[in-house]
Amino acid sequence: MEVASGSGDKAGFFTQGRSWLKALPVKFKANMVGMARNIKKLGQEDPRRVVHSLKVGLALTLVSTLYLGLFKNDGFDAIWAVMTVVLVFEFSVGATLGKGLNRGMATLLAGGLGIGAHHLAKLSGHIGEPILILFLVFLQATISTFLRFLPKIKARYDYAMLIFILTFSMITVSGFQENILELAHSRLSTVSIGAAACVFVSIVVFPVWAGEDLHNLIALNIENLGNSLEGFGDEYFKRTGGEESKDDKKFLEGYKSVLNSKNSEESLANFAAWEPCHGRFPFRHPWKLYLKVGTLARECAYRIEALNGCLNADIQASSEVSNIIQEACTKMSRESGKSLKELALAIKIMVQPSSADSHIENAKSAAKNIKSLLKSGIWEDIDLLKVIPGVTVASILIDLVTYTEKLSESIYELASKAQFKSVEPTLSLKTLHSGQNQSVKSAQMVNCLDVGINVRESTLPSPPSENSSAPKASKQRMGVQI
Amino acid sequence: MEVASGSGDKAGFFTQGRSWLKALPVKFKANMVGMARNIKKLGQEDPRRVVHSLKVGLALTLVSTLYLGLFKNDGFDAIWAVMTVVLVFEFSVGATLGKGLNRGMATLLAGGLGIGAHHLAKLSGHIGEPILILFLVFLQATISTFLRFLPKIKARYDYAMLIFILTFSMITVSGFQENILELAHSRLSTVSIGAAACVFVSIVVFPVWAGEDLHNLIALNIENLGNSLEGFGDEYFKRTGGEESKDDKKFLEGYKSVLNSKNSEESLANFAAWEPCHGRFPFRHPWKLYLKVGTLARECAYRIEALNGCLNADIQASSEVSNIIQEACTKMSRESGKSLKELALAIKIMVQPSSADSHIENAKSAAKNIKSLLKSGIWEDIDLLKVIPGVTVASILIDLVTYTEKLSESIYELASKAQFKSVEPTLSLKTLHSGQNQSVKSAQMVNCLDVGINVRESTLPSPPSENSSAPKASKQRMGVQI
Repeated sequence: MEVASGSGDKAGFFTQGRSWLKALPVKFKANMVGMARNIKKLGQEDPRRVVHSLKVGLALTLVSTLYLGLFKNDGFDAIWAVMTVVLVFEFSVGATLGKGLNRGMATLLAGGLGIGAHHLAKLSGHIGEPILILFLVFLQATISTFLRFLPKIKARYDYAMLIFILTFSMITVSGFQENILELAHSRLSTVSIGAAACVFVSIVVFPVWAGEDLHNLIALNIENLGNSLEGFGDEYFKRTGGEESKDDKKFLEGYKSVLNSKNSEESLANFAAWEPCHGRFPFRHPWKLYLKVGTLARECAYRIEALNGCLNADIQASSEVSNIIQEACTKMSRESGKSLKELALAIKIMVQPSSADSHIENAKSAAKNIKSLLKSGIWEDIDLLKVIPGVTVASILIDLVTYTEKLSESIYELASKAQFKSVEPTLSLKTLHSGQNQSVKSAQMVNCLDVGINVRESTLPSPPSENSSAPKASKQRMGVQI
Repeated sequence: MEVASGSGDKAGFFTQGRSWLKALPVKFKANMVGMARNIKKLGQEDPRRVVHSLKVGLALTLVSTLYLGLFKNDGFDAIWAVMTVVLVFEFSVGATLGKGLNRGMATLLAGGLGIGAHHLAKLSGHIGEPILILFLVFLQATISTFLRFLPKIKARYDYAMLIFILTFSMITVSGFQENILELAHSRLSTVSIGAAACVFVSIVVFPVWAGEDLHNLIALNIENLGNSLEGFGDEYFKRTGGEESKDDKKFLEGYKSVLNSKNSEESLANFAAWEPCHGRFPFRHPWKLYLKVGTLARECAYRIEALNGCLNADIQASSEVSNIIQEACTKMSRESGKSLKELALAIKIMVQPSSADSHIENAKSAAKNIKSLLKSGIWEDIDLLKVIPGVTVASILIDLVTYTEKLSESIYELASKAQFKSVEPTLSLKTLHSGQNQSVKSAQMVNCLDVGINVRESTLPSPPSENSSAPKASKQRMGVQI
């Protein structure tokens, strides 16, 4: 930039140019090293990305082999099969299936209509034919493009509309010169072969299920909320007490991943709807209810964001106020946090979330306590301005207890619609983590065709770690592939 | 559903079936009517959708005419041009240009490398050739697919990577049998013609600029925040005073569109970066700063969401508390709301946001007032529990005043980087709306090549209306096309 702006003398220009050229290899090397580091990080964060890349390579090689080996004379067909693989193969099975079905259906429909349009055009004579063809192309492109704006179509059939426009136009326009039936037939068969290869590789080789991702994302989000909320009380009163905490408190920021996860959740739910029974999830698992749970989780996240604002505010609660409200506030935040973590665990292992009930009750009784505490006479001698920060925190926490209960209700609804197993109420996070969960696990090792529950080792949560990098990494793992 | 579950007797089944069949035409008609209504609404909400559909039809017809008329013998080439149009044509100029350039560059690069790979394969003998080809296809597909996960590449060059994989595979695989140079050449020329047709129609016929959309979206979001915040104070104290407001208060919900606009903003900023100088925006307009402003606007929205929670809470501030805090709270909410609306207006007409300063000062002094009010002795006889709801509202409002100031600072930064014009500080929303803005307008009628400001009639805000449908419709107009 500086070089180009050049209002300096010529010698200066050349000196600058030389030093810029000299710096080039160093810059290039730094860029390369940075990129290599990014790539390594990308693979480590989610090894499924590496597997996905290999799967795309495999599917493409498979289709190419087929065409190089079997249909030696038809390079044109090979192109369509290769193109289908490249365009249809997506990260998750649901997305691949959805795109494959969209493409197949649209090709079939557009092919049929295209042939019809072609015959219609033939009837209208030598001059009328191209005019009618152009008119039909214009008409269907305009109508189909407009229909793509309809929210329902946009969500599930956008790709089908695109392929419909494409195939119809191609068949009517090029059919003007070529053998149209042959073209339609070859296009349909190559698209089918390409799509079948994608679906086959996608399902057979280390499948990535959008439904499972959605399930895990929702559970992880609620767990993150729980971690943030559980730690908040202690952290807040430590700070108002003047203690500067030394250890990394990034787990308090876990809730931030929830604020903007709406789009990820919606696309995962859309993809999941295409997926057949897999693992613990039957076909027609109530994926839409996950969106409801996700929305309530976001409502909680907005309130934790407000709490976090209090944590970093200029004016903090004075120590005398803190002393009075500390116990009840810490209890509210800890117990709601714990209940959220129990709810997350219940989703993860697909059992009724009854283990969260006691924590919610505790949080509610703490909320009741603080209300009666605020009614009492101990405040008379205290300057109200000093009371505000503490009272605001208490008030938001009371609100959060209400929202935690709402969230729990929505998870109960999910659990009943998705037929989660019920467990004895004594089972808690602790017993599960201490490794005494063998009986629960084996009791639930049921085929997905049966009740849709199959607890695997990998689905059990890792012990709640104070490690800051864990939530972030998991968040990215869930979010990026959409 | 009820028919299929059938555990009832056969007669019942048939009766049910018959009534279901009878209801079918009625249902079908209702569905059709509903769909027609949706389609009409879609077009009315944003007539640009209809225009976009016609533009796609036009570009496609144009390319088809070219191939039907000029290159009569090459149906194969027509297919590629048609395909390019269908895949490249997007709603905004930026998206179309981005995709077109991505496609062109990737086709050129992959074509060159594909021909190289083909010659390399030729050197390795009759048996080695297919093996080497398959190996190269596998290698490049795997590497390119993995690189698509890199955030920087995903944001701007995702489509190029896709086309690179596609073209490279197609040329190496089908080049095994055909005249490869001819294939590469024909593919490149048809892609160029198709992309050029898209870019031409997109820019010449009623262009939709992503940059302008982003600019308007940010301004609209801040205006929505302002409307919600400005009306909040009055509404809150009306309710605590027991008054039930009759008129539609949906403008209070305007802030909700801001909560989830992150993705729209990011994609619009990405598209805008591809766009040349247009209207009031020069090339290299600081689009990234809009994202910063958008993030701060969202921080405000989270806090307004918390306020809205107070509006619908079970426990409301008692009337004696209300009487004390009402004036200062209403002033804070009204003045911050007004300052947000002035900020939105400043963005819209691209002037320095100095007209918002006085409102921010007023809001700050109100915040100071309420702080000293809370320090005073008037609270001693009041039960603290009754104070909480009111104090929480006050506290969140104080926080919001701080965030409004932060937002204003970020808009000042944008205004200075984007060289917004400065206006005399007396200019306010009122003078602009009362039609006395002719001098300001003509003073800023400068070509975009000059300083990037060109105030047009259409960019001036409509008068702030209490009409509930306005913010919603505009929101959808901005958000859906992404």
